[in-house]
Order: sequence, then C-alpha cells, then structure tokens
Amino acid sequence: MNIQMIRAAAKRIAGHARRTPILTSAFLDEIAGRRVFVKAECLQHTGSFKFRGGWSAVSALTDNALKTGVIAFSSGNHAQGVALAAREHGAPAVIVMPADAPAIKIGNTRALGAEVVLYDRATEDRNEIGERLSKQRNLTLIKPFDEPLVIAGQGTTGLEIAHDMIALGVTEANVVVCCGGGGLTSGIALALAADAPGLRVRPAEPEGFDDVTRSLKSGRIESNARRDGSLCDAIITQQPGDLTFPIMLEHCGPGIVVTEDECLRAVGLAFDRLRIVVEPGGAAALAAVLFHADEFTGDAVIAVATGGNVDAQVFARALETLA
Amino acid sequence: MNIQMIRAAAKRIAGHARRTPILTSAFLDEIAGRRVFVKAECLQHTGSFKFRGGWSAVSALTDNALKTGVIAFSSGNHAQGVALAAREHGAPAVIVMPADAPAIKIGNTRALGAEVVLYDRATEDRNEIGERLSKQRNLTLIKPFDEPLVIAGQGTTGLEIAHDMIALGVTEANVVVCCGGGGLTSGIALALAADAPGLRVRPAEPEGFDDVTRSLKSGRIESNARRDGSLCDAIITQQPGDLTFPIMLEHCGPGIVVTEDECLRAVGLAFDRLRIVVEPGGAAALAAVLFHADEFTGDAVIAVATGGNVDAQVFARALETLA
Repeated sequence: MNIQMIRAAAKRIAGHARRTPILTSAFLDEIAGRRVFVKAECLQHTGSFKFRGGWSAVSALTDNALKTGVIAFSSGNHAQGVALAAREHGAPAVIVMPADAPAIKIGNTRALGAEVVLYDRATEDRNEIGERLSKQRNLTLIKPFDEPLVIAGQGTTGLEIAHDMIALGVTEANVVVCCGGGGLTSGIALALAADAPGLRVRPAEPEGFDDVTRSLKSGRIESNARRDGSLCDAIITQQPGDLTFPIMLEHCGPGIVVTEDECLRAVGLAFDRLRIVVEPGGAAALAAVLFHADEFTGDAVIAVATGGNVDAQVFARALETLA
Repeated sequence: MNIQMIRAAAKRIAGHARRTPILTSAFLDEIAGRRVFVKAECLQHTGSFKFRGGWSAVSALTDNALKTGVIAFSSGNHAQGVALAAREHGAPAVIVMPADAPAIKIGNTRALGAEVVLYDRATEDRNEIGERLSKQRNLTLIKPFDEPLVIAGQGTTGLEIAHDMIALGVTEANVVVCCGGGGLTSGIALALAADAPGLRVRPAEPEGFDDVTRSLKSGRIESNARRDGSLCDAIITQQPGDLTFPIMLEHCGPGIVVTEDECLRAVGLAFDRLRIVVEPGGAAALAAVLFHADEFTGDAVIAVATGGNVDAQVFARALETLA
C-alpha cells in the first residue's frame, strides 16, 4: 500500500466520483471552540465515500472479470458503492447484506441493479457466504476495507482534503474520520502523510465499538465484544483490518469515542447548520469535534461526514435533539 | 442591468461565496423521466443564494456607508445573507423581519450580529418601516430583489450553472428557478443569455402565489391576492419587481405552478436521494421537475434548490411523505 496507488486511483476516479465540498458554519465553530471544516462525503454518489473504493476496485478489473461480475458483503454503504460502480462498468454485482441493515440501504442496492443476498448477522458468517458464492459463480470478491484497491480509492478523499485545506491556509490540524474497519481512515492517512504531513488523522468510533481506539492504544488488533445493535451501523466492524491496522498504527491516533446520543445531536446540527443529511455513523467525527473539544488542540479541525444513508425515522429522532 | 454587472459581482464574490455543487441521482432521473441536475444553493453560506446578493451589494459600498451601516427587510433568507455579508465587512446591520417568519431564521439573523426589528405582515408595510429607519439612522437600504447590485449577485449562480452544464455537455435545457420577486430568476436569466443561450429559465411558484407566472402570461405585472400563509415563505412576494419583470419577460417562462404538498414531497426526496436539506420554498423548482414532467421537453433539466433554512417540525412533515 503506498501513495502511488492512491494517485493512480484518483486518475481512474476523475470525472466519475464527485469532488465533495468542504462546508463550514460560524455556529459550529462556536460550539467546537475552533474553526470546523466538514468534508461532505455524504454528497458523494450513493451517499457515501464507499463509491470511491468501489469504483477504484471495479475499474481495475480485466474485461473478463468484469463480464463474470463482482461480489461484496456490506452493511450497506459499500454495497451501494460497489453496485453503482459495477453497473456503470456493465458488470453484474452480487451483494451479501445483513438482514437487519436499514431498509433504505437494501432497497437502494437492489434498485442499483445488484442481486442482494441477505444473511443473519448474529448467526451466520458473511465471509464464508461471500467466499462460497464467489467460488460457485466465479465472481471477484471486493472486500469492504482490507483490500489495497479499496483503500486506494478511499484515500482519494485525503488527496482532496490536503489540496483544499492547503488552499484555505490550514496546514496543521487534526482530521477526524468516522472509522469502521479502517479503509477510509488508513487511505486518508497515507494521502495526508504525502501531501499535507501537518494534518493528522484521528479515528472516531461509537461507544462499545471502539476496536480501533483500543488497538491503537495497545499496539495490537483488538476486537469488539458486540457485533451489532448500534445506530451507527455504517461503521460497525469486529476489528481493524490486517492491512489497515499497521497503516493506522503508524499514522493515526489517538482515537476518540463518542456516544450514540452525541452522534444523533451531530446529525441534527449538520441538518440545522450545514443543510446536509448525515447518518449517525457518518456523524461520529463531527460529534467528536463538537462534543469532545478537550481531546483536540489547535485552532482548526476537519471532520469527515462519511455517509448520509439514513432512514427517515432515525433522522426524525435526530431532529428532536434540536428542540 | 447587464452581464458586465454580473461578471463584476462574480469578481467581488470570488473566495467569499461558496461555489455550490450540482448534484444528481439516478432515482430522481427515473421519477422525472429525464436527467435531473440540482444546483444546491442550500449549501451556500447562510443556507441560501441570498448571501450572493447581500455580498454583492455590501461589497460595493463606500467606506463611509459601511461605517454607518445597512438595513434590509426580508422574510428571512435575504436577512441572513445581508447580516453575514455586513458582519464580514465590519458594517452594522438592521434587519426588518415579519413576526411570523420561521423562528430559525429570526434566531440566525440575530446570531449573525444583526439588530432585528419585527413587524406584522398583515397590518404593517415593511417598505414604510424600512424607509423610516433608513432615514433616521442614515442606513443604506439593501432591497431583497429589485436592486441591480442584488440581481447581479444572484446572477453569479447563473454563471456557475452555465460553466458547469457546458462542462457536462448539456447546452439545451430548461433551468427551473424557485421564484419570489425575481432577483435570482432574472439574474440567472441574464447570465445564461450571455454564457449558455440554449439554457432557458422557467420560474417555479407555489399555488396561490403565482404572480410571476400570471405576469409572464399577461405581459404586465400581476399581484397575488394573499400576502402570507404558505409553507413556501421564502418565495412569497406580492408581485414581480419593476426591474426584474422586464428581464423575466424577455428571457424566461412559461412559469410552473406547484402545490405545497408537491414541495414537501420534493423536500423528502432531496433528503432521501441527494442528502441535502431544502426548505419547501427552495424545493419548488425540484417539485416542478419531478411532478410536472409534462410541462418540459428535452432529455435534461436543471433545478435550483435555492435555500435550506427550514424548521425541524416542517422538515419532519416532509420526511413523512416518504413513508
């Protein structure tokens, strides 16, 4: 994994992924006690950064591999990213999703032309299902985070952050990233190390699912006790990846742990002050910046709003936090 | 009023206003039956295009005029745009607002450092109040739409649309604009006439407040019977302006009239498919594109999402339309 792979992914993605804006609000600056810059990846195609990794991986396939198709397993955002990237390449896509994923994510994945296979997150192993289907039908497996081409695609977010923050005159700051398996976190970290070494990545995770924060502290891969049951479904993974963890250990940290309630309040404030729709897991970084100000130093901070695929009922709960 | 004034405003605004993105969704294309491009001005500073006109007008003032300050009367978005532009120029701002404006807009205007004077929309005349205060305190009045510098500022939106749509290969299409007094509509129309003459502006208005649509039909300025009582508060004005109407008559039309319910459904779909927060009045153009497809021709259409300042309760009603 190196910066050249990220730059190559950026070339393949150019003109296909959206170059998402960095948003600001004086009201959020006041809450955080410093200038807050929000990279709005919720405005990416399919509503999350995952389209970048999906496109990066699919666009690197041979014509034959495109013809037989791809398979991915995902709680939803990776599913949609891969499904759209596959469709735009004319490749069939099979997506293995947990049966308890938000209805909107399952529905969107199907609407993007993918074949959806559901499994029970508590009793079945998605890796086993994915590998079996992959062999049976000769599909190329696109892992959600522990895959160099995917990390490279997510890392293009970091190239954009480096470019835009330097243009804004901010060269020393923390970049807070909502963190699941670490694909985005490690990709951004590699990009920043090359292009803006004064910007340091800090992973943000929900309480009870702070595997990366604990792993960075102990220096070895730690797991979560629970596998599901969080509003922040988008960033729930069992443990950091074998590829992503060493990168994060070298470049990132310390992690910041936020509560679900803080994520909901951040979703509400992003609605009110930035006019963007962010899902709870995608708001973990903004929650860290707004409600854990004492865990940062410096006069500026960047939060990546990683996704915006949220059911209306959950969003309505976030709106109630504004009352 | 001419294109040079818009280009001059674009120079003054550069680096201050946000260059808002154009968003798309295959799901919206399917509903509309053609490709839909949404210019997301709800992501502009203060949550609406009004910041452009405010900045354009304030940045053209002399140092003395900046020192004594500015005054504006507005249902809310112009208020916030002028308040922030004034604050960034170090100028005092007095804003005359209707007492029934959304609480969020009154609160935001005060938080942006402006002095807010409330009036009763049914019994008082805001022009009279504005002119009296303006004289008493030697403030420069910044009208919401019938003012060349303001039209020029709003017109910068049109320069960006022309540039981005040409880059996307779309040179023949309708550009649907949520229309109140016509400042944005006429400004965009002038910009497109110069830079992308195949793009034609169509004003969108809510039922019962279709003064511009009727005026374009009859060829003379027509008024609305009612003055208030619409969810689309941002685009409720009594009649088109003396400056804006001739421009619209030359370049725009025919208008499209949408219902409040269609606006709410468009707000819901913008949440679901674009992950942006749009207020009901700011969704009139998207509502026209999605639910009045038979009033358009061609395979592409652009809708301007003009603002995103909406109370949480109203937004929750829009979410219910998705169920």
